[in-house]
Amino acid sequence: MFTPRPIGYVRTPFTDAKQIPKGLGAKHDAEGVLEILPEFEPGLTDVEGFSHLFVLWTFDRSQGFDLVANPPADNRPHGVFATRSPRRPNPIGLTTVELLRHEGRMLHVRGVDMLDGTPILDIKPYLSSMPAEVLKRGWLAEAEARKKETV
Amino acid sequence: MFTPRPIGYVRTPFTDAKQIPKGLGAKHDAEGVLEILPEFEPGLTDVEGFSHLFVLWTFDRSQGFDLVANPPADNRPHGVFATRSPRRPNPIGLTTVELLRHEGRMLHVRGVDMLDGTPILDIKPYLSSMPAEVLKRGWLAEAEARKKETV
Repeated sequence: MFTPRPIGYVRTPFTDAKQIPKGLGAKHDAEGVLEILPEFEPGLTDVEGFSHLFVLWTFDRSQGFDLVANPPADNRPHGVFATRSPRRPNPIGLTTVELLRHEGRMLHVRGVDMLDGTPILDIKPYLSSMPAEVLKRGWLAEAEARKKETV
Repeated sequence: MFTPRPIGYVRTPFTDAKQIPKGLGAKHDAEGVLEILPEFEPGLTDVEGFSHLFVLWTFDRSQGFDLVANPPADNRPHGVFATRSPRRPNPIGLTTVELLRHEGRMLHVRGVDMLDGTPILDIKPYLSSMPAEVLKRGWLAEAEARKKETV
């Protein structure tokens, strides 16, 4: 295996995990900055042509993992690989962000859901989407349906 | 940072990188199996409700990185963070697969583009897509347009 190293850090409005919108209906429209380290800046060449990016990052303030746990969107337990829990065997987060602008080694983005200062592992272009009509969303769709029934 | 560990290995039809469809118009419909290690099997609970999954994995047969390089889809160089090149500062791959069935610790999937035996780092549910009409695809759209002009 490899030794992970930060290629930069995320600047976000969130200093405490409680501030990050979670669970059913959570909106992810917070703006932030992907601050890339000077030595990796040439790797950003042409990134501004993409409207959306995948950001891979580390849950650096999370320790240990649970194979089965209750996510914030449901009161029933689910396997960790069916959730976005931070407590994973490899503590890697994945967020899709909208790229607002590229200024030198700074990428201004919308849709951050990481804590301020989170180390970034990788950035990849978002190239295509699954059409919404082919997606099945498992326990999350069921939890949403149960919530609607109780409203 | 953390120490990456495999949660399992991907079984695919590809034993040589040359066999993997790449570049403009490449189809990713190969079937494969995500073989999860026995100790992580409980983490797959409820994963079968999702039609699509993100698979995070390591480019374990790639060494070193290039900040700027020519991707197979274009004859012009681009920054590594605007491509899916295996030669990245953190050699992590990201593939969206369709889940065909879940049998014990085996996930049968469609859409693999990894070499056989590739270590898996993480699996996450694919929860939502960007609508295709809002996506901008940068240099890749330009390379596609140039290719069409020459046909």
